[in-house]
Amino acid sequence: MKRLILCLPLMAGNAWAAEELMQKAQALFKPIPTEPPDIRSTPVTPERVELGKMLYFDPRLSRSWMISCNSCHNLALGGVDLEQTSIGHGWQKGPRNAPTVLNSVFNAAQFWDGRAADLQTQAKGPLQASVEMNNTPERLQETLNTIPGYVDRFKKAFPNEPDPANFDNLAKAIEAFEATLITPNSPFDRYLKGDEKALSDAEKKGLALFMEKGCSNCHNGINIGGNGYFPFGVVEKPGAEILPEKDKGRFTVTNTASDEYVFKVPSLRNIVLTPPYFHSGQVWDLKQAVAVMGTAQLGAKLTDPEIDSVVAFLRALTGDQPRIELPILPAHTKDTPLPIVEVTPEGTVKPEGKGNH
Amino acid sequence: MKRLILCLPLMAGNAWAAEELMQKAQALFKPIPTEPPDIRSTPVTPERVELGKMLYFDPRLSRSWMISCNSCHNLALGGVDLEQTSIGHGWQKGPRNAPTVLNSVFNAAQFWDGRAADLQTQAKGPLQASVEMNNTPERLQETLNTIPGYVDRFKKAFPNEPDPANFDNLAKAIEAFEATLITPNSPFDRYLKGDEKALSDAEKKGLALFMEKGCSNCHNGINIGGNGYFPFGVVEKPGAEILPEKDKGRFTVTNTASDEYVFKVPSLRNIVLTPPYFHSGQVWDLKQAVAVMGTAQLGAKLTDPEIDSVVAFLRALTGDQPRIELPILPAHTKDTPLPIVEVTPEGTVKPEGKGNH
Repeated sequence: MKRLILCLPLMAGNAWAAEELMQKAQALFKPIPTEPPDIRSTPVTPERVELGKMLYFDPRLSRSWMISCNSCHNLALGGVDLEQTSIGHGWQKGPRNAPTVLNSVFNAAQFWDGRAADLQTQAKGPLQASVEMNNTPERLQETLNTIPGYVDRFKKAFPNEPDPANFDNLAKAIEAFEATLITPNSPFDRYLKGDEKALSDAEKKGLALFMEKGCSNCHNGINIGGNGYFPFGVVEKPGAEILPEKDKGRFTVTNTASDEYVFKVPSLRNIVLTPPYFHSGQVWDLKQAVAVMGTAQLGAKLTDPEIDSVVAFLRALTGDQPRIELPILPAHTKDTPLPIVEVTPEGTVKPEGKGNH
Repeated sequence: MKRLILCLPLMAGNAWAAEELMQKAQALFKPIPTEPPDIRSTPVTPERVELGKMLYFDPRLSRSWMISCNSCHNLALGGVDLEQTSIGHGWQKGPRNAPTVLNSVFNAAQFWDGRAADLQTQAKGPLQASVEMNNTPERLQETLNTIPGYVDRFKKAFPNEPDPANFDNLAKAIEAFEATLITPNSPFDRYLKGDEKALSDAEKKGLALFMEKGCSNCHNGINIGGNGYFPFGVVEKPGAEILPEKDKGRFTVTNTASDEYVFKVPSLRNIVLTPPYFHSGQVWDLKQAVAVMGTAQLGAKLTDPEIDSVVAFLRALTGDQPRIELPILPAHTKDTPLPIVEVTPEGTVKPEGKGNH
């Protein structure tokens, strides 16, 4: 009897007919499209995308001229910085792990606590956060308007606007570029589109387990996550090293008691590329992260073979990384505000970790 | 009589026949070739260049995983960081301004004091400098050998070597990539190749002045600099804000009294893209830099029109910037040494600014 119970999950996984497994998966998940999606807020025109790319790589958007969007969301490294929490102005450490920018356009909201409805709202956060780029809208506007190469491009990207090189359009252009940062064509995407052979047997077993065990209750949809909020520790709270007591997650956004330690479910797309894991960035090993999820969220102590199996499936979520030509940035002029690298009193970490991931 | 003297330089400039000006320039300067040059130390094979590009952009070569070669020698910004002196590990400020990587393969030696004979020797400096990337050869070797994607590429780039992913080959690969970072086809290069119309009249007047006044005594050759050593302040020492007393330049390399405050003549290629100027990075305005050079090196107080004229010529030294596709970097493994962002006691600025530009 004992033996039978232990074997059940795997038997169930194996027992599913190939067709049934694919149908269940297709009902729960959606493939990444091969073209950037429309976004609600701003048209993804070629002019905006190209301008947004330049801005994304320009460290002059930070107070110090040292930090660009790409510093923490590095497109050479899966759209992350591989740090527990990001390092910003004055080598200050932010309170949360930087989520990947890749496929973030498909998230229902941005930041770990979902406090930004879209990518243009998100982009305004790190630009101003004292522990990140530590800039101000006024100074940014002055910077953009004293770089003629930018003024021209803002005019073309936002035609018929009297003063296009402004903070809002800066965020819109970055959003337009970020909307193109998608990773189609992972083995799992090809499987979802009907290619039975795109996943190995081990990966299919992992997919079956991922659905059976309940991982897909939270991690589903196009981003296999990114579309809902759940408490970290539904069943059992992990230790304070993984879930620091001070960071109450979505509670700071909604001020609702039931939102304490509630976080946006992160996307599992390209997950093997983006350690360390969780909002605290405290877990480097994907196997350990899967084990923590088992106990904390599902109340299930997953066996080693089960964990290996789920990880095999997660490895099949890595898609084609965007190929980006580094932009050549326009020269500043004598009127451009010069970099300030000093850490001033206002450059200290704000309470509540506002303005961070 | 007074009026005549004041007019002499411009008259001389105007008086030169077009053919004579071009011949004088061709005798003093050489155009940037359109193809990367051979380098003495290592073959520039496609495998080494591609590997070197990956390493150049990989922040995991730093102790913190925060700083790559491209952080201070940003290929989106003329190969520099636009900082007075670079910011490194723990937000420490280095003692000298970061020279551009562009065309650096044509310099006779590297660093402001010429202490590295070639780019592979240079590359080893910032990797280890405590105020820059703060890493060690041993740790780097461990990092490279625990990233399978790198091990494979080192094998292909350095065939028939038993243990190719080592510190020396790391530097050789970076050197091979850097040798490709050249900027041909500036207006002045086209002029040197015989295109009389490549320079405007104003730029030609500046070129004539540049040679007449003696700028080209130090700034000549393919890099219009980069090939000799001269004291900063041949005629008149600039103030301590521009020439800090503590940094004795080449004296720390040769320990010879006559080398006090001697520096390598910087290249003027792409000079409008690479402020601030001088080893101290204290001058942001190119006109001011030209004026300082006039008094300090030539004992000549250049007039405003003369300075404008020289700057017009300097603007014609901007060539085609290298177009680089951002590499997709290979994933690390559980055996890779993790980033250390803390600033430890050994992470303090070393005396004499060793290990810096």
